[in-house]
Amino acid sequence: MKILIQKEKFLNALNIVNKALKKNIDTFPILECVLIDASKTKIILTCTDNKEITITTELEGEIKEKGISAIEGQFITNIIKNMPENSEIELLINDKKECFINLIGKDIKSTFQAKDEKSFPNSLSINKEKPVIINEYKLKKIIEKTSFSYDKMNNTENIIYKGVNFNVDKDKLIAKAMNSFTLSIINENLDKNFGNFSTIIPGGSLEELNKLLKGEVNKDVKIYFSDKNIAFEFDKTLVNLIIIPNKFIDTTKILNEEYSTKIIVNKKELIESLYRTTSYISDIERKPVIFDIKDEFMSVEINSIKGELKENINIKKTQNDLRIAFNPNQLINILNAIEDENISMYFSGPKKPVIIKDRQESYIYLLMAVNI
Amino acid sequence: MKILIQKEKFLNALNIVNKALKKNIDTFPILECVLIDASKTKIILTCTDNKEITITTELEGEIKEKGISAIEGQFITNIIKNMPENSEIELLINDKKECFINLIGKDIKSTFQAKDEKSFPNSLSINKEKPVIINEYKLKKIIEKTSFSYDKMNNTENIIYKGVNFNVDKDKLIAKAMNSFTLSIINENLDKNFGNFSTIIPGGSLEELNKLLKGEVNKDVKIYFSDKNIAFEFDKTLVNLIIIPNKFIDTTKILNEEYSTKIIVNKKELIESLYRTTSYISDIERKPVIFDIKDEFMSVEINSIKGELKENINIKKTQNDLRIAFNPNQLINILNAIEDENISMYFSGPKKPVIIKDRQESYIYLLMAVNI
Repeated sequence: MKILIQKEKFLNALNIVNKALKKNIDTFPILECVLIDASKTKIILTCTDNKEITITTELEGEIKEKGISAIEGQFITNIIKNMPENSEIELLINDKKECFINLIGKDIKSTFQAKDEKSFPNSLSINKEKPVIINEYKLKKIIEKTSFSYDKMNNTENIIYKGVNFNVDKDKLIAKAMNSFTLSIINENLDKNFGNFSTIIPGGSLEELNKLLKGEVNKDVKIYFSDKNIAFEFDKTLVNLIIIPNKFIDTTKILNEEYSTKIIVNKKELIESLYRTTSYISDIERKPVIFDIKDEFMSVEINSIKGELKENINIKKTQNDLRIAFNPNQLINILNAIEDENISMYFSGPKKPVIIKDRQESYIYLLMAVNI
Repeated sequence: MKILIQKEKFLNALNIVNKALKKNIDTFPILECVLIDASKTKIILTCTDNKEITITTELEGEIKEKGISAIEGQFITNIIKNMPENSEIELLINDKKECFINLIGKDIKSTFQAKDEKSFPNSLSINKEKPVIINEYKLKKIIEKTSFSYDKMNNTENIIYKGVNFNVDKDKLIAKAMNSFTLSIINENLDKNFGNFSTIIPGGSLEELNKLLKGEVNKDVKIYFSDKNIAFEFDKTLVNLIIIPNKFIDTTKILNEEYSTKIIVNKKELIESLYRTTSYISDIERKPVIFDIKDEFMSVEINSIKGELKENINIKKTQNDLRIAFNPNQLINILNAIEDENISMYFSGPKKPVIIKDRQESYIYLLMAVNI
């Protein structure tokens, strides 16, 4: 194999596929490699953890001699990163798998051994017939507005808590994530009817995908749903993720409760108040924040071994007065995911969860109350 | 005590003195506190680790009732950080040491317990009679150009390796730091004859000081030398550091060797080449970089289990050819501290250290050679 590549393009492509390298295991050294496939008309780089994520990207360059090879990913990235700016790099790998990097016009010669590419795992195949197309900006927002509420800590037996459910229902994409305390639902419109698909994507994989998404408004991402995997295609890059094979739970019942108190509150004011209460939480004592809702004021209170904080926030209230408590950090996570200036909170009693949603239900967040 | 303070000013002052909080010990909880002294005409904040560093700063504000009190530093910083922008804060501490924070014009009330300020340690006294005055920018540069070569790892028996020697010799400040591999010397001119002082400042304390220095060209720092401590005064802040009570070694002998090879090389080219060689160093094998100096070229080589790199760099050589090896990372540290475009390297044999210095000896760096 002999290919000619511009330094910055090579580095950029390596940094994309490297996102699949990070969960490597010592027992399978080929997973530390990037596969460079120049056996056909294009140069394709691939990294995989052989478990959850495989990333493939096309690298622009000139194929002088066709071939395919596996090179240690972090090593080649370091070498290319430290090459002079704008240099033209020749990568040559001979039959003995000796790898030579030469710089056109510079007296720099790097040689090292490539690995046996035959042990590089095949990735799960993708059926590209029926892509669901979504705007890249919208997709990035959906991930960011749900991914805080899947279970990162692995402290759950419930496997569906570990992922985000992507449910395509004709011209809608509904994303749902939950754990023992919260449920997050984002409803997004698609440009046309794409049929019906539903799958659960591991939260960690989605966050790796999100690092590669630039969130551009004028770009589209193609999503391919399959039985065992889901793939996202954008910018000549394909991110192929293994799914969680379970069904997500039916959330309609949880959300059906009639509310007995509704308030409208300024989001920024509430979030700043909650940040102040977190100063009073210590490692040994996790006190909740108490909301005392009365007419046009909500008192925000915390009382811990560290001290006491009490503030009054202006609200618009409908129906009953209420005294209820929450974990302030969990509520902060939800509020940070909402872009509205004012938010509506629906309560159905002091031990019942609060539901925060807008009128169109473009977002619905549920948070369990805690004991006072 | 009752004082009125603007939020941003309070937070800024807390962030300054907090630099002395970080090495706290569980056995002495008063060291987690900031001392707020409004017993006279000014509000003075103090934090100390009671071991190496004490920081004092003046806080602009209005004293309504005089007093002095100690408050948990991280806690009060978190509370003030989360207060609304531009708010006016009233801090009131009563005889029972109950502390109340009220926001002028806002319905926010925070109460907590202050600590017993009587157990707050006294800091070492400072003789302010004979300050040495140095430009803040110059001082910051001196610290940055020497502090990489004191021993951070604590893997030395030699206590003078743990600090930087500040030696005032009339109208010069000479800063020196060394470890088993390197010696760094910076010679800086002062504006007038300040007499003679010499002391060793622990490297870690200097780095904390450096975080507080903005490096402004138009500002001066006053340095006060004492037997047990050294203090730096700037912007109404005083950083009081315990010194290492030993004498620094005489470095003249080490630097007296005649050179047998001298080269002039472009610093950027050499440093980029060294960065490339570091890709070939693995955790299990620390191979050196080899310089092969011949006439107008220097070959830079590394050969490890990861592979081989060989490059040629243009040089201007005087006297003998030479083949010599160094630890590339140590040499990178030295080169990063030099601002010149081209550097002169003086060698006196394949097993002898290299000396890198400019003509005026504003900097002198020495690095031990290693076996090839």
